[in-house]
Amino acid sequence: MVKARVIVMLKDGVLDPQGQATQKALHTLGYDEVAAVRVGKVIELNLDTEDREWASARLKEMCDKLLANPVIESYRIERVEG
Amino acid sequence: MVKARVIVMLKDGVLDPQGQATQKALHTLGYDEVAAVRVGKVIELNLDTEDREWASARLKEMCDKLLANPVIESYRIERVEG
Repeated sequence: MVKARVIVMLKDGVLDPQGQATQKALHTLGYDEVAAVRVGKVIELNLDTEDREWASARLKEMCDKLLANPVIESYRIERVEG
Repeated sequence: MVKARVIVMLKDGVLDPQGQATQKALHTLGYDEVAAVRVGKVIELNLDTEDREWASARLKEMCDKLLANPVIESYRIERVEG
């Protein structure tokens, strides 16, 4: 079993309303040191294979086709353990 | 400036409709090797301080108060760089 993690973030320059709302809420709670907040998705997948190289290639396809919107998002495949 | 990353995931046993929907969509696209998918939030914060220890304590407070719902979510503070 290969365990993988994909981090999907909005591209720089794309408006991040969730990040802005979170920052505002933190300031309201008194955490004024918070200078910037960005919110994204973390997707953890278990793949039924032992072939890590094949898994990495397939993961890239999954990201390009479904997991990340190429217009406004970028992704990183962070960990492929098996 | 301290840069931190918080990973917020649903606790084990809590229904993850987004994860299930993603898995189903991946199967539809032919990625049958996907055995399980869990989707969570990644929150990247810039904190206007150089004191990493103080930042870590404040981050824990922010998570407990706002960033994670303690009833259904667990969080990890993964990186505090400065």
